[in-house]
Amino acid sequence: MTPFPSEQYRECLGNVLKRPFAITLRSRLQCHVIRDAAKDEVETGEPILVLNEVTIDRGMSSYLTYLECYCDSSFVTCVQGDGLIISTTSGSTAYSLAAGGSMVHPQVPGILFTPICPHSLSFRPLILPEYVTLRVQVPFNSRGQAWASFDGKGRIQLGPGDALICSVSPWPLPTACLVDSTTDFLRSIHEGLHWNLRKSQALDGPG
Amino acid sequence: MTPFPSEQYRECLGNVLKRPFAITLRSRLQCHVIRDAAKDEVETGEPILVLNEVTIDRGMSSYLTYLECYCDSSFVTCVQGDGLIISTTSGSTAYSLAAGGSMVHPQVPGILFTPICPHSLSFRPLILPEYVTLRVQVPFNSRGQAWASFDGKGRIQLGPGDALICSVSPWPLPTACLVDSTTDFLRSIHEGLHWNLRKSQALDGPG
Amino acid sequence: MTPFPSEQYRECLGNVLKRPFAITLRSRLQCHVIRDAAKDEVETGEPILVLNEVTIDRGMSSYLTYLECYCDSSFVTCVQGDGLIISTTSGSTAYSLAAGGSMVHPQVPGILFTPICPHSLSFRPLILPEYVTLRVQVPFNSRGQAWASFDGKGRIQLGPGDALICSVSPWPLPTACLVDSTTDFLRSIHEGLHWNLRKSQALDGPG
Amino acid sequence: MTPFPSEQYRECLGNVLKRPFAITLRSRLQCHVIRDAAKDEVETGEPILVLNEVTIDRGMSSYLTYLECYCDSSFVTCVQGDGLIISTTSGSTAYSLAAGGSMVHPQVPGILFTPICPHSLSFRPLILPEYVTLRVQVPFNSRGQAWASFDGKGRIQLGPGDALICSVSPWPLPTACLVDSTTDFLRSIHEGLHWNLRKSQALDGPG
Repeated sequence: MTPFPSEQYRECLGNVLKRPFAITLRSRLQCHVIRDAAKDEVETGEPILVLNEVTIDRGMSSYLTYLECYCDSSFVTCVQGDGLIISTTSGSTAYSLAAGGSMVHPQVPGILFTPICPHSLSFRPLILPEYVTLRVQVPFNSRGQAWASFDGKGRIQLGPGDALICSVSPWPLPTACLVDSTTDFLRSIHEGLHWNLRKSQALDGPG
Repeated sequence: MTPFPSEQYRECLGNVLKRPFAITLRSRLQCHVIRDAAKDEVETGEPILVLNEVTIDRGMSSYLTYLECYCDSSFVTCVQGDGLIISTTSGSTAYSLAAGGSMVHPQVPGILFTPICPHSLSFRPLILPEYVTLRVQVPFNSRGQAWASFDGKGRIQLGPGDALICSVSPWPLPTACLVDSTTDFLRSIHEGLHWNLRKSQALDGPG
Repeated sequence: MTPFPSEQYRECLGNVLKRPFAITLRSRLQCHVIRDAAKDEVETGEPILVLNEVTIDRGMSSYLTYLECYCDSSFVTCVQGDGLIISTTSGSTAYSLAAGGSMVHPQVPGILFTPICPHSLSFRPLILPEYVTLRVQVPFNSRGQAWASFDGKGRIQLGPGDALICSVSPWPLPTACLVDSTTDFLRSIHEGLHWNLRKSQALDGPG
Repeated sequence: MTPFPSEQYRECLGNVLKRPFAITLRSRLQCHVIRDAAKDEVETGEPILVLNEVTIDRGMSSYLTYLECYCDSSFVTCVQGDGLIISTTSGSTAYSLAAGGSMVHPQVPGILFTPICPHSLSFRPLILPEYVTLRVQVPFNSRGQAWASFDGKGRIQLGPGDALICSVSPWPLPTACLVDSTTDFLRSIHEGLHWNLRKSQALDGPG
């Protein structure tokens, strides 16, 4: 994701610091796992911070996830499928993209809500404002398992009645730009993801 | 899109005005068509405003569009296909959705860049910040036609060398909410679009 | 689509004919346009043959198509959107692919039914057996236009009450293989369409 | 999938057997797991039969799958992502559909090759002829895990060097139709999956 090759970080760092440079402020998500949500006990004081995404999936279970999702006080939907990705815009080019989400410039303030293999023809990814709080709850009568993971790591099992609370952290991560936020973003999706790469061909061939 | 049934607008209006109510500020796009972009002559002083989207398509031509797209000073891509939709977030549930774009809450500040039937496997919709200016240009050696239309109306033909310039208008459109922006948005995608509607079934059936 | 470079057709033809070679039998669709379908008058004795696809779209109309579709005697659905593509499996890598259809090996006997920008979240492409007859009808009270085109050419306007009848021709087109049908197909989607092209990277990087 | 309500199977069975009825012949896949494929030892004499699909996924691993796929003697691609679904056409409305595959009439002879959340923008599902043999191999230097499951059950871990071999069984499963194969299929995707369900609205509204 970074526009600098990691093998040459020293040299890059030196070059960056020589003169003024542009910054991309990357949003992060702060996540709390709540055990037995009916009692409203928060598990940890410290939130888990993710730069890309928090995922809830069914792990090795042969049962689909069944996740009740809320946005602030509004019911959003039940996610029945392999799982759900809640992603930052920086993370829009990672797992959310593989699951069919759009590519979002990191300076767009928003949260991506992308299902994983949903058991419904009409489930399309959603993008929500950065000021909302999302709550994903495993129903009390759920038979399946649910596993949360954070930037692809630190798997935690969620049982019936547990919930994940998630909002944009007030502390974004400033990252240095090679050129500027837009140029770097476009370069990364072209070079890293081969976005819209076509075989070059005669201009305007018949459709 | 409005949460009020249009047949009962009088009664609704009356009810809304009786007490304080929430507002959704809906972004609009201001568009300029430039003839013979090399000369940098702007066609009209007054921009064309759209609430949903501006579209450039190939009309009845049997040649694919070939549109060169820029975001500020950065080259984005060439759109080869049936066309391109540049949409507001309000318009994310209209034509952009039919073309495969994500559903975006109207309070997310951003511009959707959604291709129509792109001639490339790796073209995924893009969402860009609301502060950018987009420029879509028909190449000088283009053989195909290109037609711009604005909220589905007012078709204008673009010839070789013509360009469309597009940015978010400084004047958003305030619209009254029935409940609040998020509740209304979620209700509209459930009731109007049957988003994630599934046959109700036994909880957690085997995958 | 052909595995031979067209510039060197003489040399290729010579090489092919020197020894036994494999054949791909490519299905074609035979299409009839019927004017005023209630009267059941067939327009032309001779069917229009297509190797890739027949398309019905809304042309320059600002109204969506509204096409009633039947498969043999069963009602399939109404297509409301930019249009509909009925494609051979050979055509699965052409316009149908741009509209979101799957890639189908040319030796699979089937007909692709792929909507263009459907006005519905739950419209997914369909693949039907090669023995069916499809009928696409413009309703009598339709306000929009509908235009048929055949392998991207020969546009014909369909008015209210007109219909298109379409089935697999009994005369497939034999084409010579460079190696064999499967090898040629896989090579064409890799080289021609960059199918599943990724930036090569360290094996098994973290998800 | 069956057109008969399972609660009333006795009555249905009675009704079916009273008179001649149509049959859908449903293809099944026969699967073999080979341990240490370099030695070419077949694990079991008896193949595992699936009516819907065989899946290879990464289970709880944080590493993407990396699966080398062959179709007869041709290399198809490496699947890097959450996994791969190899599905019958009957299974096209099950897990393959959730992963983005097309809906295929059960009488179309073919095998669906559908990636699960592929780590590539240009990976589109493939449909192959029913006469091919597919081979999916875990590379010898793979760091991730791979788990096969059969119609969603019977998980088996595949280690580096192991392979899954898969082809259409010579013994399809005949199932009784309520009306006929096409009518039953269309009814099941309408009623069971809400395929192309739209809010009914005024005919031909503006696009």
